Amino acid sequence: MSKELIFGHQNPDTDAINAAKAYAYLQTKLGYDVEAVALGEPNDETKFVLDYFDEPAPRVITAAKPEVDSVMLVDHNEAQQSVSDIKDLTITHVVDHHKVGNFETEKPLFMLEEPLGCTSTIIYKLFLSENVEIPAKVAGLMLSAIISDTLLLQSPTTTDTDRKAVEALAKIADVDYKDYGIKMLKAGTNVDASSADELVDQDAKSFTMGGKNVRIDQINVVDLQDILKRTDEIKAAMQKASDANGFDLYLVLVTNVLDSNSALIVTGEPKTAVEKAFNGSLNDEGVMNLPDVVSRKKQVVPPLTEAFE
Amino acid sequence: MSKELIFGHQNPDTDAINAAKAYAYLQTKLGYDVEAVALGEPNDETKFVLDYFDEPAPRVITAAKPEVDSVMLVDHNEAQQSVSDIKDLTITHVVDHHKVGNFETEKPLFMLEEPLGCTSTIIYKLFLSENVEIPAKVAGLMLSAIISDTLLLQSPTTTDTDRKAVEALAKIADVDYKDYGIKMLKAGTNVDASSADELVDQDAKSFTMGGKNVRIDQINVVDLQDILKRTDEIKAAMQKASDANGFDLYLVLVTNVLDSNSALIVTGEPKTAVEKAFNGSLNDEGVMNLPDVVSRKKQVVPPLTEAFE
Repeated sequence: MSKELIFGHQNPDTDAINAAKAYAYLQTKLGYDVEAVALGEPNDETKFVLDYFDEPAPRVITAAKPEVDSVMLVDHNEAQQSVSDIKDLTITHVVDHHKVGNFETEKPLFMLEEPLGCTSTIIYKLFLSENVEIPAKVAGLMLSAIISDTLLLQSPTTTDTDRKAVEALAKIADVDYKDYGIKMLKAGTNVDASSADELVDQDAKSFTMGGKNVRIDQINVVDLQDILKRTDEIKAAMQKASDANGFDLYLVLVTNVLDSNSALIVTGEPKTAVEKAFNGSLNDEGVMNLPDVVSRKKQVVPPLTEAFE
Repeated sequence: MSKELIFGHQNPDTDAINAAKAYAYLQTKLGYDVEAVALGEPNDETKFVLDYFDEPAPRVITAAKPEVDSVMLVDHNEAQQSVSDIKDLTITHVVDHHKVGNFETEKPLFMLEEPLGCTSTIIYKLFLSENVEIPAKVAGLMLSAIISDTLLLQSPTTTDTDRKAVEALAKIADVDYKDYGIKMLKAGTNVDASSADELVDQDAKSFTMGGKNVRIDQINVVDLQDILKRTDEIKAAMQKASDANGFDLYLVLVTNVLDSNSALIVTGEPKTAVEKAFNGSLNDEGVMNLPDVVSRKKQVVPPLTEAFE
């Protein structure tokens, strides 16, 4: 069997990087020749996690075809969120928890999508069904990814399966997950040190809605003002990125991870779709409060997709 | 939870009907309100199976939206092989073993694709991982589907997982699977009683290749001459169906289920793609022998797709 690469989406978050690492461990045990890589550098939160569990950052690639013919995707399935040359590669495996977007293969593959809070929860279940023992370090990586994706089990994307996985993985990793989780989430919210260009791109994903190129970024903070005091600077960076990359509409979701509220900063058009989606009005600065919204996947993408129809 | 319908592809074969029935049994045990239906009448083979296990034929539907908002798909994922109003429905579950074609959802879903010989093999595995006991009748239905899809474990699509499932399910169903399997396959090959119109449509599936509308049917026989002696009549029926439905290229794969050889009857264009795909020539009648070819999915669709690129 020839070597395959495993990776999560562009602008990797903790799940994208750790799910790739955990799945690579599992697939190696099952006899595959694989390497976990990433489509970008780890963010501050992921750096904290890798440092805590004494795990190296994955090698960053920009194309896969020079190295391999086949790849395994975790935590994404849409081509525009994947490696640049995905169309030239055979996808043999997908493990993911997002909506499926225009996905197509030439041959049958292994593809497991589940509507759970985190890809690492699905991989935890695969460890169980394949009867493969989970080392403490791999448990810590999956635990961190679930804490990250569910904001310490507070996000509406959280399911009972995620909660059970967190309990079980915390035991294996020997970690007090609540204490560890708050430290980990705070480590990811140090926005002062980042430029506006970095902030609007760091966790951004592209979507096609009603023929428009829509970019949605999320920034986690412990105080919304950490970002909102820099709104002009942030909007200029969004505009610059849109001009350079042809984004029609750009949304930055600023989320307070401690009290589970968000604010939305919007540039581009159609802004009316955003106002329709969230049944509210953008203020003169292009900002809207979104109380109780924390999940891009569950609370932003579906209503916005619907508003475009 | 509101009711959902479960169904396999149009022109249902034994797996499309029995996988729907088995998955409906499993999902009901897991707390879902579901009904297994079909997108067409059972073929002769499936009738033999349902009769053998004293199981009623499923209700046939042509649209789902009048009854339900959400559906579960088995044994297919492509919209053109599904219910007519699939675009108006929410797909909550997919269990399938085919290539994925242009698949898209608005929300995360449960989707399990595995490169195994039969959807019922995947459903058998789900029974195991969900710890749900399999009744003898449900085991018999899944066993029949695997025998059908793998031509009694002879097709190159057959995996070790399919073989193990057949052994286990035959025990539960208390059936000598080899003896039963040959009777079942023969029951599906009584082509003399069918009109050419019926034969070319019975197991036909549509594909889009290189922008062309390609129709591929498969007819199982115990002697290729059963069909080849009717080539003119078959080709006329293919041409008629193409004129009525806008098929550009029509392939009928005639397969001898006893010795695992096939012949291909072709109408429409581009015939050159067919000759390129199978590295051979069509004779003056538009017929080509395909020794050792028995699987549309594994031995016809992939090379033809490639020939169109």
